[in-house]
Amino acid sequence: MADWLATLDRRAELRARAGLTRRLHPRGAADEVVDLAGNDYLGLSTHPEVTAAAGAALRAYGLGATGSRLVRGSTDAHHALEDDLADWLRAERALLFSSGYLANLGAVRALVQPRTLLVSDAHNHASLIDGCRISGAETVVVPHGDVAAVQAVLAAAPGRPAVVVTESVFSVDGDLAPLDRLHAVTRRFGAVLLVDDAHALGVTGPQGAGGVVAAGLAGEPDVVVTATLSKALGGAGGVVAGPAPFVRHLVETGRTFIFDTALPPAVAAGVRAAVGLARAADDLRAELADRATLAVRRLRAAGLTVSVPDAAVVSVTAPGPEAATTWAARCREQGVAVGCFRPPSTPDPRSRLRLTLNAGVPRADFTRALDVIVACAPVGATAEPGSRVAQVVS
Amino acid sequence: MADWLATLDRRAELRARAGLTRRLHPRGAADEVVDLAGNDYLGLSTHPEVTAAAGAALRAYGLGATGSRLVRGSTDAHHALEDDLADWLRAERALLFSSGYLANLGAVRALVQPRTLLVSDAHNHASLIDGCRISGAETVVVPHGDVAAVQAVLAAAPGRPAVVVTESVFSVDGDLAPLDRLHAVTRRFGAVLLVDDAHALGVTGPQGAGGVVAAGLAGEPDVVVTATLSKALGGAGGVVAGPAPFVRHLVETGRTFIFDTALPPAVAAGVRAAVGLARAADDLRAELADRATLAVRRLRAAGLTVSVPDAAVVSVTAPGPEAATTWAARCREQGVAVGCFRPPSTPDPRSRLRLTLNAGVPRADFTRALDVIVACAPVGATAEPGSRVAQVVS
Repeated sequence: MADWLATLDRRAELRARAGLTRRLHPRGAADEVVDLAGNDYLGLSTHPEVTAAAGAALRAYGLGATGSRLVRGSTDAHHALEDDLADWLRAERALLFSSGYLANLGAVRALVQPRTLLVSDAHNHASLIDGCRISGAETVVVPHGDVAAVQAVLAAAPGRPAVVVTESVFSVDGDLAPLDRLHAVTRRFGAVLLVDDAHALGVTGPQGAGGVVAAGLAGEPDVVVTATLSKALGGAGGVVAGPAPFVRHLVETGRTFIFDTALPPAVAAGVRAAVGLARAADDLRAELADRATLAVRRLRAAGLTVSVPDAAVVSVTAPGPEAATTWAARCREQGVAVGCFRPPSTPDPRSRLRLTLNAGVPRADFTRALDVIVACAPVGATAEPGSRVAQVVS
Repeated sequence: MADWLATLDRRAELRARAGLTRRLHPRGAADEVVDLAGNDYLGLSTHPEVTAAAGAALRAYGLGATGSRLVRGSTDAHHALEDDLADWLRAERALLFSSGYLANLGAVRALVQPRTLLVSDAHNHASLIDGCRISGAETVVVPHGDVAAVQAVLAAAPGRPAVVVTESVFSVDGDLAPLDRLHAVTRRFGAVLLVDDAHALGVTGPQGAGGVVAAGLAGEPDVVVTATLSKALGGAGGVVAGPAPFVRHLVETGRTFIFDTALPPAVAAGVRAAVGLARAADDLRAELADRATLAVRRLRAAGLTVSVPDAAVVSVTAPGPEAATTWAARCREQGVAVGCFRPPSTPDPRSRLRLTLNAGVPRADFTRALDVIVACAPVGATAEPGSRVAQVVS
């Protein structure tokens, strides 16, 4: 009976030897670290209007929603946020989930009918991959960003319902999917396009409405959008936006919607305030774009291998998982928090530092943080001209 | 391309004809309804100490956690709550998830090794069922509460790793699983027992520590507990508690832990205050037990078919899905909110009203609510002596 724990210990030991140990490091409320690790792109998580709106709803409704949306958990705060999100995303309807993970599980599964074929980008987030798995549908994984591969898969399955599943801005390398071309292909074959806009919402597009609106695909009857409310909106939860019959289908059949306690009303209210702020935040979006350019220039000048950021995610190649961990730890000692991504959290064997820009960080702190990242870089982090990544960014 | 929406409309029409339409009904902050539908068993969601703790953390940390636990989302508030939950549940370690659904998905999957056999109770919650599905492991569903069936399945798979998956207090009928006998069987066969304590935590056991502690199984090396923080604790999120090597395994490999934004720090802080209050709430637990007895007596006296409540969930049989919907709607018109459970949210074809007791509801309102439920009962709701349910409760 204790065998299983011994097995888990052995597996932990193997991970440790491969440099893949993960540890939790709590931060305090008065954290002085320069944040290039979180997803609070617009700095809204601490905006006084956001916390004030959440605080007012906390006093009005209490802490929890006290039940699932269909039983007891639907409050005016949820419906008001859904209306505002639908308006912003130019979708017929929007539906809240208690996390972005559950939104993706629910959306993918709800799109699957008998015989549906799922076509999934190789860099898709774990929640989309799990959505494909839990749906039980046949899933073909296509090379990252490869529209021709998507077309070939759809062409080889005539008459079958199909869903093309992609992120807009990919979470690890920060690159943008070719949404317009993907949609042209899905439309031609009568398929549906599902786009996870988590890292684009608030950061790209008119009024920050994200990658789907920017690509001119909002409101199309064959497009479904998912997003988290925990990144640029500074809160928690997820949303699925799309045609009204699809959202109705989710309400009536979506297991991760129906059988889950609703988002706390205070979170919904705080996020609603954040939506209003995000729509008006063109100045912050310009600042993020400027910082992305600055980061690439500074880090490449130091010889580092850097992705092409289409939004506010910048990926820097590390020589290996242990070097990535050490690099991130050194930055941390210098007061800079960066993301450290190693397999299996990466879509390939390459370890990275992930820098996520935050317009709430003072600019002087940001430029100092870039210096720290360069100064802490391990041996071997400078670009190898022949590598795949260097080719991609050249 | 519009075909899929027409298909969804046709399916909605079929559900409507079967009386299985589901609609969202928002409630306001000043909702005067008597709540027998939510899961706020101890009334803690609106307790001033809970909302004050959440409010203080909201001001200190901001609204969202701004990232996953391993990247940026671990705050002191999360770790303090995890320590308190482990202490309360008498487990080596406890780990937070952003919802109970994700906790169950993570826990089941993390328990699966190559060749693992899952043995799942027929009444298990959707999140446990989805956990079994997403794990990819062979799953045998056994009749509800049938220890002999569990034993037979384990005996027929000698030498295979196995996990027995059950709730403690089942969500639809409120009955308690035979945890001590289930554990004796799992122990004999070297299996692991996974218990979802969502509806027992705060409501049963010493200091309200739930069904596993009450059964004397806390801290056993072959027992893992999951629970939501959104029911008796009045907040949101989920927890997995168990042996330290298992929790470490979840931190390092659990996809629904690693790839999900952390619970908002304010929610963690509010729930932590609720844990302290729940531990000391023997008076409220006595009140709940008294109300459960009262509800059964009053409703049975009126000829209704009522489950045997082992905690604070009381199930009342309805003649069919449409009658259940009408019954609940009539109660609502009289100012009483009750849960309305119809297939496929029920483990069998029987529709029910589900009454969830709330110690925060004034006692006079509660007794009046029972009168309303009786007065609104549809034709055919009185017990049929030959029915399966009547036998169970006799």
